[in-house]
Amino acid sequence: MNTFGHLFRVTTFGESHGPAIGCVIDGCPPGIALAPEDFVHDLARRATGKTRHTSARREADQVEILSGVYEGVTTGTPIALLVRNTDQRSKDYNAIARQFRPGHADYAYWQKYGIRDPRGGGRSSARETTMRVAAAVVAKKWLARRGVTVRGCLVQIGDVVPRSHDWNAVEGNPFFWPCAEQVPELEAYMDALRKSGDSVGAKVVAVADGVPPGWGEPVYGKLDGELAAAMMSINAVKGVEIGDGFASVAQKGTEHRDVMTPDGFASNHAGGVLGGISTGQQVVVSVAFKPTSSLRLPVEGVDVDGHVVDIITTGRHDPCVGIRATPICEAMLALVLMDQALRHRAQCGDVGEVAPRIPAARDG
Amino acid sequence: MNTFGHLFRVTTFGESHGPAIGCVIDGCPPGIALAPEDFVHDLARRATGKTRHTSARREADQVEILSGVYEGVTTGTPIALLVRNTDQRSKDYNAIARQFRPGHADYAYWQKYGIRDPRGGGRSSARETTMRVAAAVVAKKWLARRGVTVRGCLVQIGDVVPRSHDWNAVEGNPFFWPCAEQVPELEAYMDALRKSGDSVGAKVVAVADGVPPGWGEPVYGKLDGELAAAMMSINAVKGVEIGDGFASVAQKGTEHRDVMTPDGFASNHAGGVLGGISTGQQVVVSVAFKPTSSLRLPVEGVDVDGHVVDIITTGRHDPCVGIRATPICEAMLALVLMDQALRHRAQCGDVGEVAPRIPAARDG
Amino acid sequence: MNTFGHLFRVTTFGESHGPAIGCVIDGCPPGIALAPEDFVHDLARRATGKTRHTSARREADQVEILSGVYEGVTTGTPIALLVRNTDQRSKDYNAIARQFRPGHADYAYWQKYGIRDPRGGGRSSARETTMRVAAAVVAKKWLARRGVTVRGCLVQIGDVVPRSHDWNAVEGNPFFWPCAEQVPELEAYMDALRKSGDSVGAKVVAVADGVPPGWGEPVYGKLDGELAAAMMSINAVKGVEIGDGFASVAQKGTEHRDVMTPDGFASNHAGGVLGGISTGQQVVVSVAFKPTSSLRLPVEGVDVDGHVVDIITTGRHDPCVGIRATPICEAMLALVLMDQALRHRAQCGDVGEVAPRIPAARDG
Amino acid sequence: MNTFGHLFRVTTFGESHGPAIGCVIDGCPPGIALAPEDFVHDLARRATGKTRHTSARREADQVEILSGVYEGVTTGTPIALLVRNTDQRSKDYNAIARQFRPGHADYAYWQKYGIRDPRGGGRSSARETTMRVAAAVVAKKWLARRGVTVRGCLVQIGDVVPRSHDWNAVEGNPFFWPCAEQVPELEAYMDALRKSGDSVGAKVVAVADGVPPGWGEPVYGKLDGELAAAMMSINAVKGVEIGDGFASVAQKGTEHRDVMTPDGFASNHAGGVLGGISTGQQVVVSVAFKPTSSLRLPVEGVDVDGHVVDIITTGRHDPCVGIRATPICEAMLALVLMDQALRHRAQCGDVGEVAPRIPAARDG
Repeated sequence: MNTFGHLFRVTTFGESHGPAIGCVIDGCPPGIALAPEDFVHDLARRATGKTRHTSARREADQVEILSGVYEGVTTGTPIALLVRNTDQRSKDYNAIARQFRPGHADYAYWQKYGIRDPRGGGRSSARETTMRVAAAVVAKKWLARRGVTVRGCLVQIGDVVPRSHDWNAVEGNPFFWPCAEQVPELEAYMDALRKSGDSVGAKVVAVADGVPPGWGEPVYGKLDGELAAAMMSINAVKGVEIGDGFASVAQKGTEHRDVMTPDGFASNHAGGVLGGISTGQQVVVSVAFKPTSSLRLPVEGVDVDGHVVDIITTGRHDPCVGIRATPICEAMLALVLMDQALRHRAQCGDVGEVAPRIPAARDG
Repeated sequence: MNTFGHLFRVTTFGESHGPAIGCVIDGCPPGIALAPEDFVHDLARRATGKTRHTSARREADQVEILSGVYEGVTTGTPIALLVRNTDQRSKDYNAIARQFRPGHADYAYWQKYGIRDPRGGGRSSARETTMRVAAAVVAKKWLARRGVTVRGCLVQIGDVVPRSHDWNAVEGNPFFWPCAEQVPELEAYMDALRKSGDSVGAKVVAVADGVPPGWGEPVYGKLDGELAAAMMSINAVKGVEIGDGFASVAQKGTEHRDVMTPDGFASNHAGGVLGGISTGQQVVVSVAFKPTSSLRLPVEGVDVDGHVVDIITTGRHDPCVGIRATPICEAMLALVLMDQALRHRAQCGDVGEVAPRIPAARDG
Repeated sequence: MNTFGHLFRVTTFGESHGPAIGCVIDGCPPGIALAPEDFVHDLARRATGKTRHTSARREADQVEILSGVYEGVTTGTPIALLVRNTDQRSKDYNAIARQFRPGHADYAYWQKYGIRDPRGGGRSSARETTMRVAAAVVAKKWLARRGVTVRGCLVQIGDVVPRSHDWNAVEGNPFFWPCAEQVPELEAYMDALRKSGDSVGAKVVAVADGVPPGWGEPVYGKLDGELAAAMMSINAVKGVEIGDGFASVAQKGTEHRDVMTPDGFASNHAGGVLGGISTGQQVVVSVAFKPTSSLRLPVEGVDVDGHVVDIITTGRHDPCVGIRATPICEAMLALVLMDQALRHRAQCGDVGEVAPRIPAARDG
Repeated sequence: MNTFGHLFRVTTFGESHGPAIGCVIDGCPPGIALAPEDFVHDLARRATGKTRHTSARREADQVEILSGVYEGVTTGTPIALLVRNTDQRSKDYNAIARQFRPGHADYAYWQKYGIRDPRGGGRSSARETTMRVAAAVVAKKWLARRGVTVRGCLVQIGDVVPRSHDWNAVEGNPFFWPCAEQVPELEAYMDALRKSGDSVGAKVVAVADGVPPGWGEPVYGKLDGELAAAMMSINAVKGVEIGDGFASVAQKGTEHRDVMTPDGFASNHAGGVLGGISTGQQVVVSVAFKPTSSLRLPVEGVDVDGHVVDIITTGRHDPCVGIRATPICEAMLALVLMDQALRHRAQCGDVGEVAPRIPAARDG
């Protein structure tokens, strides 16, 4: 199951330190202008090595388009994208190959398959998310033509939360942080953390504007259900919320339910989804990232023979994996919306199979 | 998309106040003893009308097995289950048919399909979950033979949390509450809430014991990813957590990562899943339910002509939908595990396609 | 795998002599008028007991619509259809339960599942096709609004072939035979065959008119590929052809390739499909049915203990199952086209995502 | 829909004259030894340019394994295979880009997508089948360990049929022809054909030995149904038969039904499949290929403006595409069996979920 989506299907492949990673996008509508340069911006945002606060891997991440594009335009046939891994250090993985790093998938993979690729985490590495971001570039182009845009930011690092929320600040700092004046504090916080050898978690929020009402499906193909699966499929994610999420538990019904007026909804506790279907409001999803498991602080662990061993993870590792997860959350949001848009079009048509039998509310 | 699962596929159908609801279970292994009586216990646990704290609908919920069982044993062919809706009140839905109830899917369905079935919420009613619980009865039988069991309880109602946690207490009260001495308080709390006409949210935790390491798939078929989708597909759910969930955000890496010892894991912050694959520990998932949207307290709203109207929801409604959601969360956990078990068996075989190339840790 | 289709998904259930058969249609567009009466005509055409030339089972085959329709119109939610089996004779199946009837699925099911439902063939009975015809009624309504129609006829029984081909003759005789003057001969042929206790095969052709160019997908979702799967999934089918089919083997390229003119194609050897995609011509598919395996003539066989036994199949059985297969082939053609239409709409939009970059040929 | 299979899923990509073709194999069991050399033999058998009887394209077809293999063994993660197109002639496709070649997918693609890649047929080229053969190499390795093997041969070219059938002869001539003494005649036949500028069709038979009883699924996942889809998805295929195929139409039931004896089946008219499930006999599938559409003989056609134009297809083209289709048919047979094997294992377990309730016939 390395395919995401039902109609806009993205199949990814590749291990962190194998020869290459890539993806095949199947079901993409024809007629979208697409060139290798289109991937540069988003891959750079996701890229490691951007600042001292994220890990030092320096990959060009140059995307080669292998198929599905002719004369700069998508043809409707599968689009294969390839990124060579240029930074595969030829170090010896033998030690780690026989150890189970705590917080990592080593033990689980080994139990499942009886074998694992220990090089840089293999398939379980966050490197795989490069291709999600790449695939979402295509989706975002199609969505943008329909007025749908996605963006995201960090809303918590460890126990630090933004003091204010300004979307314009987000792209101006390496933390995707929405409060500009807080950035120096955050830098100091991260410097201290990195110095200590420890790590923290983070919380990302991703939102989509312009989603028309009616995207999503009842029951098992719910827009929020697929968003939950999409976000939980990102490395290190431990929780997903739509709208008010877990805060809803302590809310009263009179407080939570979003009242409708002739001018639209008066609030958005629901996060833009009711009954699994978009309401026309902003779609809001929050995602919890656990702290990085790879630490240079040694920890007792077990090797494949059941012996106690000291485990030290060397190499480059972000002290907070959540920081560069913002573009990945945006990407997954875009991929889910793209897929739901095509599914909606299949069943209900572009302009609706039938005229609504009763006139639309003014707000639409 | 009314089908859940890839190999153990459950397709549900039916509207709340239509003639019947039902499901088709496809891909079920042969040889499982199955009789109509097997459904009684779990459907009763989920059933409405159990106490004064849940809504008053009184349905027999008698399951008819239409196919897939011969001489009391599953044959491997699709199992169709049918439950007639005996409590369809023939009331006039015309008023509500032209109104959009806040917090409900009315507006979203109408925008999507240009038409909706207003009778009792139609397809978006929680009545649909009856069939999830029924389907999970079959899954739980198969899982139990492999030592896998699921259970659940409430861990928050509004802002009330358990003072202690005793699994033995859970089935002894109508709230699936793990602290027996707190039950009278909860009853008073709920009585006051019902009297006020308002509602609250709730948080459910569901756990699976006995899950062997190796179930789940990397990347898009992750065990936790599918759990997130499964839980978020339940009515009124706004958040899902695996293990420590959102608490992970403020944790340090040294705190969160579960250390392995020759006797097994020393903690379970991960909730039994690493890299999307089970680790052999208890699988732990938490689910946030929003407060019931249907309230007898009137609220201003909009009708299909865009006019402001007073919306009053009459009829039976739980002041806290989360209470009877516990069996539903258990059911979804069982369905996900069943599906992942079959998928694991397909790719890796019952006993592993190959012997692990390195011996297993003692803990296994 | 009891589901057919990707976007217009039909899941069937039920055994020949179980309590009921039924199906769930998922993904159906909203707004299609649908009533129980709509199924009468096509189910009667498929029904057994129509004439002395087909088997004597007399089922009312009354379709109950359990969900997905409100006030006579499809709502977009799953449509469940149920047909009770009213003619389940309570005879003893013990004898046959331990025997493997030649030409039947008895042995294969038993080897696969370790268990089988011997009552009337259980799941492998052609009774399952009732629900295909029922589901296709819905598809045909949607297709008809777009000018797409399907029809079929018999073009061979044993070694008898039509002397002429008149579509108007087809519905006027119990054989769906396109040559009216030949019908008395056929009746004599079938009477003699039934008297002999033996059976023969048949060949059905099904055609679709009005299919626009562009339906179908390259490579694995080809229109002809899905037609082949659809037809081969019908009981007793052993071969499928598109257009000239096996006759193409002996043709020259100059003969087979259909020349295009400004007024359209000059011939249709391809059967309306090139590269897996419809060309706008008539879609033509031919299907080979094997002779009925159930014969009252005894045959030596084997029972489950490996002993040689005399096998005699009593009960009602058509001497030529292909005769009433015509409506089933039409149904499968309609289901494939419906599914491909929705898939085309998903990827390419109703009117094309982009204007063709070069003007269309006059012929369209 | 560029993915084949449900559990052993092969997603192919790439155009004939684009930068590369490739595939991703998802769901492959771990522990299979795999190296680039493993692909050489089968790709050479399929390769163009082998003899003067097939087209002159000379591609190295060197397979690069991009992922899913560690230290020479499959890991259970997706296996990506890449073949660079080394023989992309930089010729001008402008002329052909505005013409619709008869018998080709040009017009259908253009109508579907509003755009097409004219370079060498783009996605509709038989070059795509290279990846099917490559993917099947992996499947065949797994199947071979279970005693399942596939092979194929030509049984008709134009109106020429083999005078004898000797499997040992097949690999000894460029036609995969089972009658050695006939090969000189065939060579003369093909030389004359090529000289004439015309082309002919061909018929291929592919068989699988060692398939255990029980593979396949009832109704829509039938083994024969999936074989039909698989074969019909190959370029230029117009017909598929299982076992006796269309010959069954004229057979009597007493003739067709395969009698079982304590020593096994006495005949194999069914082609190894009953009720969609394997019987333990040889699985036999026959495939009709139409004559090559690309001919150097000019033909009147239409261009995108609707004008009549002379169409001449230059470049390399086999006068009989069916000849090198034999390895492709074998490949599709292997892919279907692999997928069905995994599906059977998922539902019924490696050794059966339950012991058969009645002892097995001696024949098994």
